[in-house]
Amino acid sequence: MWEQATATGAFRAAVQGATDYQQAMLRLFGIPESEIAVTLRAAEERIGDLDELEITTCLRRGEVEVVVRYEPSGERAWSELGDFIAERHPDTLFSSDGSTVDLQVAGLLARKGWKVATAESCTGGLIAARLTEGPGASEYVVGGAVTYADEAKVALLGVPAELIREHGAVSPEVAEAMAAGALERFGANAAIAITGIAGPGGGTEEKPVGTVCWCAMDADGATVTRAVRLPGDRAEIRDRSTTVGMHLLRRLLRDEGPPP
Amino acid sequence: MWEQATATGAFRAAVQGATDYQQAMLRLFGIPESEIAVTLRAAEERIGDLDELEITTCLRRGEVEVVVRYEPSGERAWSELGDFIAERHPDTLFSSDGSTVDLQVAGLLARKGWKVATAESCTGGLIAARLTEGPGASEYVVGGAVTYADEAKVALLGVPAELIREHGAVSPEVAEAMAAGALERFGANAAIAITGIAGPGGGTEEKPVGTVCWCAMDADGATVTRAVRLPGDRAEIRDRSTTVGMHLLRRLLRDEGPPP
Repeated sequence: MWEQATATGAFRAAVQGATDYQQAMLRLFGIPESEIAVTLRAAEERIGDLDELEITTCLRRGEVEVVVRYEPSGERAWSELGDFIAERHPDTLFSSDGSTVDLQVAGLLARKGWKVATAESCTGGLIAARLTEGPGASEYVVGGAVTYADEAKVALLGVPAELIREHGAVSPEVAEAMAAGALERFGANAAIAITGIAGPGGGTEEKPVGTVCWCAMDADGATVTRAVRLPGDRAEIRDRSTTVGMHLLRRLLRDEGPPP
Repeated sequence: MWEQATATGAFRAAVQGATDYQQAMLRLFGIPESEIAVTLRAAEERIGDLDELEITTCLRRGEVEVVVRYEPSGERAWSELGDFIAERHPDTLFSSDGSTVDLQVAGLLARKGWKVATAESCTGGLIAARLTEGPGASEYVVGGAVTYADEAKVALLGVPAELIREHGAVSPEVAEAMAAGALERFGANAAIAITGIAGPGGGTEEKPVGTVCWCAMDADGATVTRAVRLPGDRAEIRDRSTTVGMHLLRRLLRDEGPPP
């Protein structure tokens, strides 16, 4: 009886305030939350009637989520706002339908029929764990190597010891060799490699704690390589390094090249 | 001035209710929380004056934490209770000083001067990530192989393809071969291997979702092998498998053999 009652239009109208709210979600990566605030103020000047939209922004694990709720009459304002944000942030807006980068990477791999392998140092297994989090991961994950020690990078991934001596274990060169090694050893179509200094020890003047290098590479030799110094403590650096790795893998799978 | 004020005995006595509380913590693994409740009731009958102790129990990630707070006059009751619990639960009480299994494993490896390697399937990198969570992990972690696909178990860890065909990828035999492979490929002193079915797919009548096999092995050939069916969903099975792996590694490092 309760089920029947809640199914009536009258009940639903009362609960929902007599209107059907729509909800949209955008996700951006590699942009400070403050920049989205600036964009929203600029949008207000340009578009005008943003009062019809209920907008909230949230910074979560390095990604900015923009959630917009509106009544049917706000459809046009939302459409204009969505276009405005897409225009201003073409390189950082990665999701217009609320999908996570994890879901996108899984979808891209499945669509291509590709298998991915990982090669990690400072993240110590976190990106492999993240790629295998969802059900059905065995469809697109072959495996990964956690090469914490330099000798493991050489033995498991075939990284030349000389390359490590010359450039250091945390370098774009070694990240690329780790990715190439993972592709070959696992017979994968794509690989993501991460090497960095999560701290608190191990930093130098030239390469302080937070220095991280990534390389996403596919079997045709296309690469997306990046080196950045991340802020935060050990746990934050490991977590953020994993998220950046997911995004670089996504760019590789979409043939987008490195971020600007 | 605030600092000076808070340093006075009068201030501290007022804040703390004029007494110094002591706190002790026990950790147990592989025991339901209800069994600890039974033990506490039995202790009350045997020891009597447990009123002096403020006891709380908490189930966290498969481990039971028992926290006991008491005033100096409760010292003797706590001592008797601690002994009583240790006597009743010799195989599941693993920490009498509140130390986590992670901290104990790190300490045991450091004391022995040993390096550990991991070989994981269903946990997909989680135990490698857990072992490398703390600062200084490079002192005792060489690395790990996430061998999600069977071909990766063969290529990366040298698991005989025939062994997989004969016993299945989720079997004590393959777990042992994975551990042996990790020891050899990483040149490690100890290895922990995990292979299982995290679900939701992949289960069979003989080996349903939640079936997990572990093997902890050291370079001298000592092994702690175990096969269990874990309850829960995919995330819970992966998480619990990781915790069990940490405990089996601890038992290996303490020469304790498999749990009863």
